[in-house]
Amino acid sequence: MILIKVGGGKNINWDYIAADLKNIREKFVIVHGANAWMKETMEKFGAKEKMIVSPSGQISRFTDNETMKILTMVYSGWINKMIVATLHKHRINAVGLSGVDGKLWLGKRKELIYSKEGEKIKIIRTSLTGNILSVNTKLINLLIRAGYVPIITIPAITPSGDMINVDNDRAVAVMVRDLDIKKIVMLFEARGLLRDKNNERSVIPKIIFNELASYIEATEGRMRKKLFGVKEAFEYGVQKVYFGDGRIQTPITNSLNGGGTIIC
Amino acid sequence: MILIKVGGGKNINWDYIAADLKNIREKFVIVHGANAWMKETMEKFGAKEKMIVSPSGQISRFTDNETMKILTMVYSGWINKMIVATLHKHRINAVGLSGVDGKLWLGKRKELIYSKEGEKIKIIRTSLTGNILSVNTKLINLLIRAGYVPIITIPAITPSGDMINVDNDRAVAVMVRDLDIKKIVMLFEARGLLRDKNNERSVIPKIIFNELASYIEATEGRMRKKLFGVKEAFEYGVQKVYFGDGRIQTPITNSLNGGGTIIC
Repeated sequence: MILIKVGGGKNINWDYIAADLKNIREKFVIVHGANAWMKETMEKFGAKEKMIVSPSGQISRFTDNETMKILTMVYSGWINKMIVATLHKHRINAVGLSGVDGKLWLGKRKELIYSKEGEKIKIIRTSLTGNILSVNTKLINLLIRAGYVPIITIPAITPSGDMINVDNDRAVAVMVRDLDIKKIVMLFEARGLLRDKNNERSVIPKIIFNELASYIEATEGRMRKKLFGVKEAFEYGVQKVYFGDGRIQTPITNSLNGGGTIIC
Repeated sequence: MILIKVGGGKNINWDYIAADLKNIREKFVIVHGANAWMKETMEKFGAKEKMIVSPSGQISRFTDNETMKILTMVYSGWINKMIVATLHKHRINAVGLSGVDGKLWLGKRKELIYSKEGEKIKIIRTSLTGNILSVNTKLINLLIRAGYVPIITIPAITPSGDMINVDNDRAVAVMVRDLDIKKIVMLFEARGLLRDKNNERSVIPKIIFNELASYIEATEGRMRKKLFGVKEAFEYGVQKVYFGDGRIQTPITNSLNGGGTIIC
């Protein structure tokens, strides 16, 4: 089974992705983001986006009740259903699910998180964020066996039924472990992993797993997080990860053919 | 199988509903609205709610692209996931789906609708509204047989993959036909069908199907639409419909025991 993770940028072309899915002969499951739409909607709601920087430099979204509400609206509502409808236009039998549905993504809320604010490190106890512990593989396999393509996004849920925000890229790693996935395609708004993030032509065609740590060192922000997720996915048994451009035609076959960055 | 239809009012108590579901021995499927939250969110977006009055007096929402976007946010995102999480809190293994997922609610867009504006009747060709033609019973039965409770809401989808807004109460009628449902419980913010809508004590305990047409004559707005849906459900084979109060404890057993209005 291939896991296809698609970023939440506004220039991702879902028509191209949907058309290309018909070229994929293996079974697949899709995980998607919606970050750009989330930012836009937060602004529209007059809700202030609060980002937390961990002591190690990881950036994450502070998720209070209002943010969680907008997150369910944008990720599991608007963007998920837009993607599902687009896939149906291309005769892909898509079913959209959040991590909440059937406890698909079961996780644990972080009781406290550390936030670096200037020189100080603060402790925050109220963020509705956490980590995924396990995936409801039964539900995913039930749907796939019946001919459906699961389209999955945040939020996740705790054993006691609280919704939590989790990092989609880390979620992918747990999917790899629980679904025994060997290949991941990650599409985003770049040609691949860039040596110089301001130069679209500086795509790194191939990375060996052993080099990954040094790349994590050298990157920042969302790409750093993505690479962390990739590292975890390898630890959980993935064999190849393909980074590719989600803005171009046949984006999946292009990245499978080495058009972006291959990590192995 | 029982179909439980829950209205979209703000005083519907989902904790009470979830707790009561454990008393139901038959299999069930839930359809829900989100109208009050939709209104609120439309306002927050500064989107003007446009209602259309048909020549026969039916009121419906004019659905343009912006309205459809907010509709997916509120119905299939925020409220659907809030309900699913609440059900999981009560150990009900809920899976939230829109009519778009797996083409669960397949419908036809109305190419033109008639709008009564004062003395004039206008033709509108751009509304993304329609009627459900069929239900993906395979997907619903697949989930139910595997132990999940489907929680379903709008939008629906056309064969070519366009999202359409449909009337939840009419959707219920098609669910009755395709899933061979014999009992419907409809919960909303009233004790039942009221003889005088301003008097909560004027609940009509029992209505015979033959009387339904005259009740439709006598009611207006959303209740009229609900009764239209009920009439259609009887034509499609339902045997009993229970109206009940979605604000009180054990709302489902209460209405099954005749606490509201029984239509048979």
